[in-house]
Amino acid sequence: MNTIQNDRLLKVRTAMQKLGLDALIVRTEDPHCSEYPADHWKFREYLSGFNGSAGVLVITNQHVGLWVDSRYYIQAEAQTRDVCLDVFKDGLPGVPSYIDWLTYTLPSDSVCGIDGFTVPYSEYLKIENKLNDFGIKMVYKVNIINELYVPRTELPLDEIIEMDYSLNQLTRQEKVSLVRERMLQMNASHYLLSTLDDIAWLMNLRGTDVEYNPVFYSHVIITPEEEHLYVDPHKLTNVISKRLDEEGIKVSLYDHFEKNVSNIPAGSRVLFDPNKINARVIKALGDDVIKVEAPNIVEDIKAVKTETEIKHITNAHIKDGVAMVNFLHWLNGAFMTENLTELSVAEKLLEFRQQQPGFVCESFGAISAFGPNSAMCHYEPTIETNARISDGFLLLDTGGQYADGTTDITRTVAMGQIADKQACIDYTLVLKGHIALARAVFPEGTHASQLDSLARMAMWQHHIDYGHGTGHGVGFYLNVHEGPQRIGKKDNGSEMKAGYVTTDEPGIYREGKWGIRTENVVVCKVVGESDFGKFLGFYPITMCPIDKRPILVDMLTNEEKEWLNAYHKLVYETLSPLVSEEVRQWLQGATDAI
Amino acid sequence: MNTIQNDRLLKVRTAMQKLGLDALIVRTEDPHCSEYPADHWKFREYLSGFNGSAGVLVITNQHVGLWVDSRYYIQAEAQTRDVCLDVFKDGLPGVPSYIDWLTYTLPSDSVCGIDGFTVPYSEYLKIENKLNDFGIKMVYKVNIINELYVPRTELPLDEIIEMDYSLNQLTRQEKVSLVRERMLQMNASHYLLSTLDDIAWLMNLRGTDVEYNPVFYSHVIITPEEEHLYVDPHKLTNVISKRLDEEGIKVSLYDHFEKNVSNIPAGSRVLFDPNKINARVIKALGDDVIKVEAPNIVEDIKAVKTETEIKHITNAHIKDGVAMVNFLHWLNGAFMTENLTELSVAEKLLEFRQQQPGFVCESFGAISAFGPNSAMCHYEPTIETNARISDGFLLLDTGGQYADGTTDITRTVAMGQIADKQACIDYTLVLKGHIALARAVFPEGTHASQLDSLARMAMWQHHIDYGHGTGHGVGFYLNVHEGPQRIGKKDNGSEMKAGYVTTDEPGIYREGKWGIRTENVVVCKVVGESDFGKFLGFYPITMCPIDKRPILVDMLTNEEKEWLNAYHKLVYETLSPLVSEEVRQWLQGATDAI
Repeated sequence: MNTIQNDRLLKVRTAMQKLGLDALIVRTEDPHCSEYPADHWKFREYLSGFNGSAGVLVITNQHVGLWVDSRYYIQAEAQTRDVCLDVFKDGLPGVPSYIDWLTYTLPSDSVCGIDGFTVPYSEYLKIENKLNDFGIKMVYKVNIINELYVPRTELPLDEIIEMDYSLNQLTRQEKVSLVRERMLQMNASHYLLSTLDDIAWLMNLRGTDVEYNPVFYSHVIITPEEEHLYVDPHKLTNVISKRLDEEGIKVSLYDHFEKNVSNIPAGSRVLFDPNKINARVIKALGDDVIKVEAPNIVEDIKAVKTETEIKHITNAHIKDGVAMVNFLHWLNGAFMTENLTELSVAEKLLEFRQQQPGFVCESFGAISAFGPNSAMCHYEPTIETNARISDGFLLLDTGGQYADGTTDITRTVAMGQIADKQACIDYTLVLKGHIALARAVFPEGTHASQLDSLARMAMWQHHIDYGHGTGHGVGFYLNVHEGPQRIGKKDNGSEMKAGYVTTDEPGIYREGKWGIRTENVVVCKVVGESDFGKFLGFYPITMCPIDKRPILVDMLTNEEKEWLNAYHKLVYETLSPLVSEEVRQWLQGATDAI
Repeated sequence: MNTIQNDRLLKVRTAMQKLGLDALIVRTEDPHCSEYPADHWKFREYLSGFNGSAGVLVITNQHVGLWVDSRYYIQAEAQTRDVCLDVFKDGLPGVPSYIDWLTYTLPSDSVCGIDGFTVPYSEYLKIENKLNDFGIKMVYKVNIINELYVPRTELPLDEIIEMDYSLNQLTRQEKVSLVRERMLQMNASHYLLSTLDDIAWLMNLRGTDVEYNPVFYSHVIITPEEEHLYVDPHKLTNVISKRLDEEGIKVSLYDHFEKNVSNIPAGSRVLFDPNKINARVIKALGDDVIKVEAPNIVEDIKAVKTETEIKHITNAHIKDGVAMVNFLHWLNGAFMTENLTELSVAEKLLEFRQQQPGFVCESFGAISAFGPNSAMCHYEPTIETNARISDGFLLLDTGGQYADGTTDITRTVAMGQIADKQACIDYTLVLKGHIALARAVFPEGTHASQLDSLARMAMWQHHIDYGHGTGHGVGFYLNVHEGPQRIGKKDNGSEMKAGYVTTDEPGIYREGKWGIRTENVVVCKVVGESDFGKFLGFYPITMCPIDKRPILVDMLTNEEKEWLNAYHKLVYETLSPLVSEEVRQWLQGATDAI
């Protein structure tokens, strides 16, 4: 097949031959280990046509493989139908990892290349160790993206803004002091930071370099005496430049970071998170520098939101709730009178959000998915796929960036008749899972992963499961996905802490039929203390009714009904003074006790 | 204080001085990383007076510290009251690990010793790496136990018996073949095995070297061509010796193991589990030998019980249930008429077990704990502590070794009046936790740790928790604790698999008041398959009523009541034909639906 992507892959093979490579790994990350890189870095998408947020492309002389996780099984197949590659569904039994596959496929003495800027150091070591075991050599300075990604989108040059002073509880210098405290504990002389949201938080600055994520491309080095920000100086206004200078924060060119890392003197103790910094940077460190590896300390500090931050975040969620309720009221009426599509309702919802004060942009590409489309977890409608909305479930996973907070909400709305009883069973099981996690109480020290099965047990009893995580951290006018907490099957070592802002979002997806997900953002707080220690629990801050119509009430326990009624009462009391009388009346019905 | 233990610790200090040691670590393990070592190895107990199954003693010139986990907080304090040492409660906030404590306490250039036979290789590396970071040298060939542990109990010389052929689904050679398959997958030339229950399983042999555990002291080396069993040959009958010889299994002297490991030729790929083999053995490997580290493969194969094994194990549990029911019926009457103590009821229960065919011995030291004593999780009554039984909770955690299976059961019985309503709330919360785990359904691939919070959520809602795990594997006429599965807060990486035999045992302990635990053994089986894969669940094989009298029925959901009634119906139907008419009548009442 003579598609654009196949042509591009051919060119990659030619380049590989020139470089003496038998295989090339193309990952998704930018040099900052970002989940969502700027277009400038979307080489994997450029080559494969697959635009999901995670995935690894591997090219050899004979084969091309694309590894995707369960969120993207369907989407990857669909988007690469005309590309000569095999989709490998990571996590399915019998499917090898891309690293294992390389060990089967390449003869020993082969050479495998990767662009070290686009792979976290820890992952690079894993690849290198495994391939070396099989006599395969790794080359990490493969930089063919500029030559082959044509025309390559330039890195954005937009201005950086400073966060409104009143929104921050801590100044830049106070935040840097917290970092230095941790450095001292680990006896570190240098701290390397490349993750964009962590830098934005640390500097109380925001940018627009990555769609939906208010971050700017930069790196940071902190020593006990100095703070260096590596950023394109054109992005800084005079006011910000002057302030940074007054505060002793040195601004260097973005491109000088790798070189300056290589100049760190022998004997230094350099602290970094091996999962959050690219391999090129760490490989640039001299041999006599001591590597101090630890989970990202800024991420850890940033995740515990201060009271001031929680106050603002809660307010942003109330505004978002007003937009959602105005939208749902409109949707209810428009369904009877207008031709609705996935794209048209998403646009309308965006309009309602735009009416809210402080709204900046969406916090991620809106998922507006009707019927079978909603079975694809991370589906985003396009003009080609845009489905007309008729009877069935409409899944809306959307969110907003506000100057005072980031939102993320999923509601699955019953449009017209839901004919299939199994759809209502699934809807109710998702709700039971959502409530089980929302009601959880747990001792301090509990890992986020320990809570995951609570959200799944009701559906597990029905032999149903979902392939994504149950909850992720949400930033404060920052990335909609942030760590360290992750409520999921795999333990990533993170404890759930008071002050964490996290989603609760179980779902059920039946290929070709429907997808259902119900998501609130919740704040973790101390709920009590006893002889057994401190206990934590969750408080929802997402303010929006959960569609009651598809609920099979008999499947709910009394506790579950009480939770739903109390939540709806709170939603009504919070939002009713903020909407029109007509919307208020609709809201009253939507939040009535069951 | 001039106690025996203080004298012994003084002698250790003298020996340390001679050897140039600034600190000595005395752990609990024998050279086989056993949880329960033979008396021959109980040096830590000899020195400290603390007889719990886990704990680390650290002796420096100035200090003695004893590190214990939450199971032993109370017991360790009580047993070491007259010994000049500090108890460190591992896991409490602010309590350093013994390794961290050594780094604070010892100046750099100090020397710390350990008997490498008594520490798993992985743990030794952890100690060595950390102490080396602080300039402290480790010495692992410290062998002062023989000189100072006087008189030292000899290693047992009892005969080894062969398992009844009809009980095993697999012969020795079939089992060794399974091991060799795994070795081939990992390209290993040698496999080192030191864990006693794994060797007993592999060889279809049983011993009596360790109290309660039907194992014998031995090591094994398997190569693609040969099988070596290192064991004292006096323990083998002529019949067994001849059979092993005919099957090509070479018997070598127990003491030759370390030397033969050191003779493994350069370039060999030696497979072992770094957590399950002692440091001395691995340190004996030549520098040019390649270490292949992996979780213990025999443990992994052994844990999935065959259908034949499950049939026998189920039968052993029915016999144990008959003994329990006879006992509980007796207890009910005797409470009115006799003076009962913790020891007297434990003895009576043992008598009832001894009446059962195939009974060998108890599977662990019986926990018979009344009132405040039961708040100590692993309390075993002694003549000094033996409490008289009056109104309150009696906790009985006991089990039997039968020729066809191993049992482990805990029942908490209400004796007379339970005056404190909180005691009944706690009892009901423990039951709710037990049922939540027993009713769990989960997809294949679920880690045992993912199920732990199910058993805790009901009590977490009441701000209550317990410090021990929720479930462990149980052997087939083998150790009452076996791996790899462990249902607990920490993920040890083990998946719950069909064929696993595991306990379900949440509890609540209030110091000075009461302890409550309810424990069944359950078998993991496939319960269904759907578009979402295979789903697993648990079937209880422990057959014994759960005391209904302390249950606050209003706290149970309908599903929980249904589970309890169905379980009790099964118990009644299984056991009623096997007990006397008088006991049957009592059982009927004890298993009536609530």
